[in-house]
Amino acid sequence: MAETCDLSAVDWIAVDWGTSNLRLWLMDRDDRVLAQRSSDQGMSGLTRAEFEPVLLDLISDVATVADRIDVICCGMAGSRQGWAEAPYRTLPCSPVDFMAATRVSTRDSRLSVRILPGLRQDRPDDVMRGEETQIGGFLAHRPDFKGTICLPGTHCKWVHVSDGQVKGFTSFMTGELFALLSKSSVLRHSVDSDQVDHDSFLAAVSDALATPELLTSALFSLRAASLLRDVGPAESRSRLSGLLIGTELAATRRFWLDQPVAIIGASGLGRAYQSAMHSQGVEAEIVDVAEQTIRGLCAARTAWKEFTHES
Amino acid sequence: MAETCDLSAVDWIAVDWGTSNLRLWLMDRDDRVLAQRSSDQGMSGLTRAEFEPVLLDLISDVATVADRIDVICCGMAGSRQGWAEAPYRTLPCSPVDFMAATRVSTRDSRLSVRILPGLRQDRPDDVMRGEETQIGGFLAHRPDFKGTICLPGTHCKWVHVSDGQVKGFTSFMTGELFALLSKSSVLRHSVDSDQVDHDSFLAAVSDALATPELLTSALFSLRAASLLRDVGPAESRSRLSGLLIGTELAATRRFWLDQPVAIIGASGLGRAYQSAMHSQGVEAEIVDVAEQTIRGLCAARTAWKEFTHES
Repeated sequence: MAETCDLSAVDWIAVDWGTSNLRLWLMDRDDRVLAQRSSDQGMSGLTRAEFEPVLLDLISDVATVADRIDVICCGMAGSRQGWAEAPYRTLPCSPVDFMAATRVSTRDSRLSVRILPGLRQDRPDDVMRGEETQIGGFLAHRPDFKGTICLPGTHCKWVHVSDGQVKGFTSFMTGELFALLSKSSVLRHSVDSDQVDHDSFLAAVSDALATPELLTSALFSLRAASLLRDVGPAESRSRLSGLLIGTELAATRRFWLDQPVAIIGASGLGRAYQSAMHSQGVEAEIVDVAEQTIRGLCAARTAWKEFTHES
Repeated sequence: MAETCDLSAVDWIAVDWGTSNLRLWLMDRDDRVLAQRSSDQGMSGLTRAEFEPVLLDLISDVATVADRIDVICCGMAGSRQGWAEAPYRTLPCSPVDFMAATRVSTRDSRLSVRILPGLRQDRPDDVMRGEETQIGGFLAHRPDFKGTICLPGTHCKWVHVSDGQVKGFTSFMTGELFALLSKSSVLRHSVDSDQVDHDSFLAAVSDALATPELLTSALFSLRAASLLRDVGPAESRSRLSGLLIGTELAATRRFWLDQPVAIIGASGLGRAYQSAMHSQGVEAEIVDVAEQTIRGLCAARTAWKEFTHES
């Protein structure tokens, strides 16, 4: 896990601590990445007391040479069930604000840990934790961006951004529904494939855009089609993905019609959203998740240094 | 489990063998129920060879005195992974046809077992197994019924019936989605309650009817509302149910607008559908599931006796 790097050059640690995974980067004083490390010890499997030892274990080589370790975290580590609660900031606001970070008390006195808060929206009720840092990273590079940022994932977010602020957003359970339906529902018998059938995906996107109210019926029809017509698992799985993403697109027209759209997510899922929008005449750009996360954490680090310098 | 009854009066066994449960009735020669028995040994937990011993175990008292045991089954026992495949009949057709039943070969030569087939529809793809027998039971009592039959459950069915035939139907994964979301998704933290908040249920039905394309977003909003506003589990659970049923109603207007609707399902779920339709100005009647199932199996038994008598 631990890569070799010049440990004396490590200036701070950037951490994205999510529900099921943890990813961190050893950073130098010029905010260059010296090494990347990860673990499957996400927030959901840890008690409050376990976060510090898990982190120290991942950076044990750094800890042997450093007499001060600055750490900036984003993500679910800041939830009520996490390491320390970082209360949500309320829209409209800039995505990342170091001054609102929660300071974590640690047993190892060399550790100085800050967790960035997520964002909340009150009408309709919605929350994000972690995505705000990716948005902050994107805006650090593109401060004048005005349009929509789409962040595919377990709970996909569509975010209106202008004037460097998050103005509003809507989350969808698309990713979690896909996982539940493909692994734990009656559809699991019909969608066991690692192939993608692009035409079936796009046909399902189009079906769902035309009749999004039929989603829960169209899902059952996938099972019936595999029973009655021996439709293969690649086609069924691609249709399942297309139905869920198409339904999401039906509900997000105000986000993607007639304005710039950037997708944070260069994985297959990000490309699936890009291709679904392309089929509707929308050309969305794609940027890398980890890159935006690091940039967002670096923006917070810059504010931290300025704050320390001033005080 | 076994009730006392006059075993010598048992003429045949009516069985509803579903995915997760098995229910049977000892019937006399005038199709009166002598006793009811049930078990959790549903189709999904059994290999083909296990069906016969499970059945014999449930009727062991009958088996010790009878020298012939006629059995009529409906439900998932007739699926490809069941006791013996009973191939689907194609719409439009009468719901129950004994002549299309599959004869099961048994090791115990006294057993004479028939499984009734389910129904298939080809455009759009859809299937049912078990519900056709309930529909047949309903029509045995109400042969002139022309309208819609709604069968709530894991995969809720909406069925167009006229001239004693099933003309078309649409299934929804509503029940299975409710179970997955309330037990296995992020919403499980927010909906753990056995109370019903009727006003919240109806408000969510209305929301979903107005904007059914927002379902997968409204689901996430339940989680956000419990985090941000401490919305209680009874309200969240009732809203979850209302969102799913309301989305179903948005997709089934052609089934429930301006025509008679009968709900087969006198449980809380059936009443939830009734009350959701009532809020839209539709007065649906409710009938009991087991009663319709027994009536449907009795209709098949009558045909069996006529057939045996003729041949």
